Amino acid sequence: MLNKSEVKYIQSLSQKKFRDEAGAYLVEGPKITGEALASRQVKINKVYALEEWAGSHAASYPDVEIQVVSTFELQKVSQLKTANQVLAVAEMPANSFRFKKQLLSLALDGIQDPGNLGTIIRIADWFGIGQIICSKDCADAFSPKVVQATMGSIFRVELLYTDLGSWMDTQADTCFYGAALNGTPLRKVPGLDSGVIVIGNESKGIRSDIMEKINQKITIEKWGAAESLNAAVATGIILSHVRKPKA
Amino acid sequence: MLNKSEVKYIQSLSQKKFRDEAGAYLVEGPKITGEALASRQVKINKVYALEEWAGSHAASYPDVEIQVVSTFELQKVSQLKTANQVLAVAEMPANSFRFKKQLLSLALDGIQDPGNLGTIIRIADWFGIGQIICSKDCADAFSPKVVQATMGSIFRVELLYTDLGSWMDTQADTCFYGAALNGTPLRKVPGLDSGVIVIGNESKGIRSDIMEKINQKITIEKWGAAESLNAAVATGIILSHVRKPKA
Repeated sequence: MLNKSEVKYIQSLSQKKFRDEAGAYLVEGPKITGEALASRQVKINKVYALEEWAGSHAASYPDVEIQVVSTFELQKVSQLKTANQVLAVAEMPANSFRFKKQLLSLALDGIQDPGNLGTIIRIADWFGIGQIICSKDCADAFSPKVVQATMGSIFRVELLYTDLGSWMDTQADTCFYGAALNGTPLRKVPGLDSGVIVIGNESKGIRSDIMEKINQKITIEKWGAAESLNAAVATGIILSHVRKPKA
Repeated sequence: MLNKSEVKYIQSLSQKKFRDEAGAYLVEGPKITGEALASRQVKINKVYALEEWAGSHAASYPDVEIQVVSTFELQKVSQLKTANQVLAVAEMPANSFRFKKQLLSLALDGIQDPGNLGTIIRIADWFGIGQIICSKDCADAFSPKVVQATMGSIFRVELLYTDLGSWMDTQADTCFYGAALNGTPLRKVPGLDSGVIVIGNESKGIRSDIMEKINQKITIEKWGAAESLNAAVATGIILSHVRKPKA
């Protein structure tokens, strides 16, 4: 049985403040939990699962603590409308990485919608982008909504939350690309091996102080009348064009 | 003042059954309502607005019936968490159009998430796609969530809900393209002036009986480990590649 303090602890992880304090976040459902368990990058503190899930998985992960819980108990600590067999508490990675400037990367300037952020992390993973630099006002990638929206890609992409403008200033010989209305048409941008593509806020785009640091503006050509594209859709379109074809 | 039966009528339009019966749907907020009023394609039955909105807009639309309501009344009939100044009841277009086969079009096979459908309609509008054929199990484009997610693009794109497979059978000399895992890499697909691009369900992709009717499979190349891309993101990527550059 789950004791009261454990229930309270798990529930508290739905809030950023408590995630930061505990250095832990929630992962839910068999698919994403399975990916977390299979990944060498992710440390799982504990797994809470229905008997059927535990029965068929416990043997595969002898080093992981798995507690069997009832459907009622699982729903109590779940952030999903309908809890899905298993929930894991994972250790939050450190908010730091050694930036590999020889690789193509993404930077996000104020992506505030959790669904958009999760979708962008999933897109980055599809296109093999391993590093994302997030401005401090981006949604928190370890919130349950974002984690679920990444479909497991969060375990394969490194994230750094920082003051984006100051960080850009320290990257002297990195080329910054940014989506803008008056830039080079995307089809004229050559394939990229390195550099950072900056994606702006859903409604305001890239902030002016960040835009000043952009070395090359890129424009997604428009044929019709829509005013803008969703930030995640724009990310997908840009990456699909600038990623050099594999040999 | 809004009378009881009018409140009930407006509220009922949140449900597909009543929208179909009434042949009407809801549009909310100053931006989208403004676009609806400005469009010659959309017939507005009635507008309900706060005094400030009505005061600054009534003169521009002398032919439209505008009723001033209180904040409390507007919230009562609104589908938004926080009602936004104005709500309009628009006439639903007929579920039919003369398919223009000389134009590039989209077909959706079971897009069930309202947010995805709205985003796809917005993407179609951006790329100047004026016709979308929807399988009958797609989300309803005239539900409040979809209308809001299109950001006004719903007024510029024609939709047809039909049995997709049977409809494809009647289009003898139309080329159908479909996103699949084992198709031609997107960068090798030439620019398209006509044909229909078929987008499949969020988790299951294109149904097998529809896939049989696809003339050319298209693949979005993958660099990393994500299993799939969001359906709307895939639509944006494909359209951005196959749309021929403007002269």
